[in-house]
Amino acid sequence: MTSIDFARKALVVVTGASRGIGRTIALEIARNLNQNSILILLARSSNDLEQTKNLILEVDKSLNVITESVDLSSADVPTYEKIIDKATASVDTTGIEFGIIFHNAGTTGEIKRTTDLTDVKIWREYYDLNLFQVTALNSVFVRRIRPIAPQLVVVNITSLCGRTPFKNLAMYGSAKAARELFFKVLALEEENIIVLNYSPGPVDTSMFDSIITNAQSEEVQESFKKVKESTILTCEQTVGRLIALLEKGDFKSGDTIDYYDRL
Amino acid sequence: MTSIDFARKALVVVTGASRGIGRTIALEIARNLNQNSILILLARSSNDLEQTKNLILEVDKSLNVITESVDLSSADVPTYEKIIDKATASVDTTGIEFGIIFHNAGTTGEIKRTTDLTDVKIWREYYDLNLFQVTALNSVFVRRIRPIAPQLVVVNITSLCGRTPFKNLAMYGSAKAARELFFKVLALEEENIIVLNYSPGPVDTSMFDSIITNAQSEEVQESFKKVKESTILTCEQTVGRLIALLEKGDFKSGDTIDYYDRL
Repeated sequence: MTSIDFARKALVVVTGASRGIGRTIALEIARNLNQNSILILLARSSNDLEQTKNLILEVDKSLNVITESVDLSSADVPTYEKIIDKATASVDTTGIEFGIIFHNAGTTGEIKRTTDLTDVKIWREYYDLNLFQVTALNSVFVRRIRPIAPQLVVVNITSLCGRTPFKNLAMYGSAKAARELFFKVLALEEENIIVLNYSPGPVDTSMFDSIITNAQSEEVQESFKKVKESTILTCEQTVGRLIALLEKGDFKSGDTIDYYDRL
Repeated sequence: MTSIDFARKALVVVTGASRGIGRTIALEIARNLNQNSILILLARSSNDLEQTKNLILEVDKSLNVITESVDLSSADVPTYEKIIDKATASVDTTGIEFGIIFHNAGTTGEIKRTTDLTDVKIWREYYDLNLFQVTALNSVFVRRIRPIAPQLVVVNITSLCGRTPFKNLAMYGSAKAARELFFKVLALEEENIIVLNYSPGPVDTSMFDSIITNAQSEEVQESFKKVKESTILTCEQTVGRLIALLEKGDFKSGDTIDYYDRL
């Protein structure tokens, strides 16, 4: 069974929690969680993380909200271990019923024709943040939280671009494809972990805007602009569906589910 | 139309041509090609490349076979440009009717549980060879060969592991997933290039053996061992099907086709 009852004491990790989908995940989860739950919010900007924290504490003052400003493109396993250990040492972790991580942080990379993506250094930096660091943090989460939480949940925020080719989005899409496959293997190997690849649909975030601004091809700019003016979703819409999916649990661990799949 | 008539003058590039599937591709293609065609064979081991070259010249002495010992995990765009330019300057390129590249070189990476894949440096080196360098070489191929060949064909050797999760193969599978998506975007962006993602099935190569030897999980070792003792394919079988597919051309550019799909 993959359904999750959020009204229990939990330890929650959200990457990219300083804005957009990540901030909304942290906020919406906070509305449901049992008091004394622990939220560990990671992102680069400490100011924006503090804002997320304040918004959460407006919802529920009893939550333990820990923010850590960290560069997720260059951290390493010891850094992640230190963050998790510091967090779990600073609060009461007894009675935690589940641990959940949302791998949400991500960037668009170079939005260019594939034949112009020739700089190996840029590829490498892109994959550092968008794949390699995700696998490192995920391992630390599993190893550190497994002993203190009877149920573990891993949510990977993916994209339709990882399953369907979009012009100018080979860098972005390839890393999303790689991440999805990685988390499917995790689900296969770890029968006791609930894994969900969630594809949020087109969401009104600064990332979406950056595609409109930075895509090399005008055709791509125009097509994203049209979506922005018509069917684009709010963070609240897509996060609401994600939480509903996790609560209902009618998916197999490792599945990829898109916002539009269950409408 | 995606069908390819191999009995014409061509420029062919094969990576990992020193052994296994790559060597067989070079050899089988050589049987069909018009005389005076050009084969550029890339791999690390110059001795093994020479052997491939000698086998080809036994088939057809009129072919121009150029071998280049190159470390495909650390080369760069200028290196690839030099290789291609040197090759095309050394032979008569007039009358070339198509250029085809086989992105075949690849490694298995660390064959471990996903939660043990924590070394970002190893991830990076793995992706250098298996994705980033592939994109760099592909760009050079397209840019350099487009002016001298009216038809361009790009073949990516992929794997079922890039579409279906296999235990202990998250590193390998994730890069194959990434590569497939990359080449699907290439197909979408470049309407005049024929792109095929070919999944060769389980093939009797040293790579297959290394999974049996090096997989962390005994269950994985055993399951690959069973395949090796039963349904494993020869390089000739899978390359025969690949060439038949390209000749028939009943696929859409960008498609992924597995050995077993059309049986």
